[in-house]
Amino acid sequence: MELINDAKGKPLAEVVADSIKSYIIDNDLKVGDKIPNEMELSEALGVGRGTIREAVKILVSRNILGIRRGVGTFVSEKLGIVDDPLGLVFMKDKQSLAMDLLDVRLMLEPKIASLAAKNATNKQIEELRIQCNKVEAAINNGENHTQEDILFHKMIAGCSGNAVVGKLIPVIHSSVSVFANVTHRKLRNETIETHRQIMEAIAEHDIEGAELAMIMHLGYNRRLIKKMQHNQENDD
Amino acid sequence: MELINDAKGKPLAEVVADSIKSYIIDNDLKVGDKIPNEMELSEALGVGRGTIREAVKILVSRNILGIRRGVGTFVSEKLGIVDDPLGLVFMKDKQSLAMDLLDVRLMLEPKIASLAAKNATNKQIEELRIQCNKVEAAINNGENHTQEDILFHKMIAGCSGNAVVGKLIPVIHSSVSVFANVTHRKLRNETIETHRQIMEAIAEHDIEGAELAMIMHLGYNRRLIKKMQHNQENDD
Repeated sequence: MELINDAKGKPLAEVVADSIKSYIIDNDLKVGDKIPNEMELSEALGVGRGTIREAVKILVSRNILGIRRGVGTFVSEKLGIVDDPLGLVFMKDKQSLAMDLLDVRLMLEPKIASLAAKNATNKQIEELRIQCNKVEAAINNGENHTQEDILFHKMIAGCSGNAVVGKLIPVIHSSVSVFANVTHRKLRNETIETHRQIMEAIAEHDIEGAELAMIMHLGYNRRLIKKMQHNQENDD
Repeated sequence: MELINDAKGKPLAEVVADSIKSYIIDNDLKVGDKIPNEMELSEALGVGRGTIREAVKILVSRNILGIRRGVGTFVSEKLGIVDDPLGLVFMKDKQSLAMDLLDVRLMLEPKIASLAAKNATNKQIEELRIQCNKVEAAINNGENHTQEDILFHKMIAGCSGNAVVGKLIPVIHSSVSVFANVTHRKLRNETIETHRQIMEAIAEHDIEGAELAMIMHLGYNRRLIKKMQHNQENDD
């Protein structure tokens, strides 16, 4: 491990953080892998343990590392995707946010569903079927199915074969779940029905069918958001 | 200002960081606005200055705050959009990354261009025209036009009227500029020509025209990336 020298007046802790990040990449560390401890890092990089501690804190706050007290420091399962990565918390008008997010999903997810139908492996299809059933079970049991629902859409992104899509969809869905998750408790039957259609189309490699089923799925959500906005306007 | 109490075992510095973030939002602070100094924050939140310092560092590392030495701490112009927000640095295959990014741009940007043609104000159109000329001048002068080019595409996102798009396009373009900026030095004439077409279509509120011009613009880039990948494969 060595210090990265393109510093340009960066604080030392930032330079050390970059070095640790490079170490993770160069050594192909995976989610959950342990990184060297504070003393080892201090010796390897030739900087004090206080600086190492600060650098690790920076990487934890960016969701690149995670600390388990008494055990060690690990590559975070969030792999550098921060909470609220789009900074949507700074947007004032939360009401139009739900619609804007949905419109962005409409730009991306129908095309992603068609890519998934084209590229999904048999293993991915099997996992998607299981996940589809999980969402359905959660809905039928009256449980909050938000997290299972997000996972279903993430898995479709994973099936697409486009690595950027795999990164982007979690970003958008984490935004949805934090700020604009207004439709999940309604639309139960529609969600079950359209999720199944999407899953079946992907399983049959039906490219057009997957795209259309996703458009329908998002269309139900869009209509509900619009209706809720109208109601709110009438309440005001 | 008060401490946010949904802590759940969060480190105190993280709780304080959340409180400062809420203060920024609640008081509608804008980019460049100064936040209270360390002593004031310490008194307002009832925690030590060391904790305040740590919380500020967390927010700086998330690009929510920026420090100007000797002047004070400000709301960052990056407004919480971190560098490499998609964590693409962790992707091994940089070669297919350029193509995957381009395919995502193809899902989003033609539709965004058509929204821009629909919604752009006269002021936005004037600014877009100036930016279009800047890119052109940079290309003609043989300068690196990457940053001006990114700004052109960001301004189109701004014209769309969709706030999420305004956040998302910078994320994608910052990824492009860091990891996959392989086409900018070529395609000079094509960039000048298609940028102008996009700008003119938006100025004329020609919805279809803007979408088509953007598809052409991205199409040139896609073809070049494909060609470069073929060449690289043949070199291997």
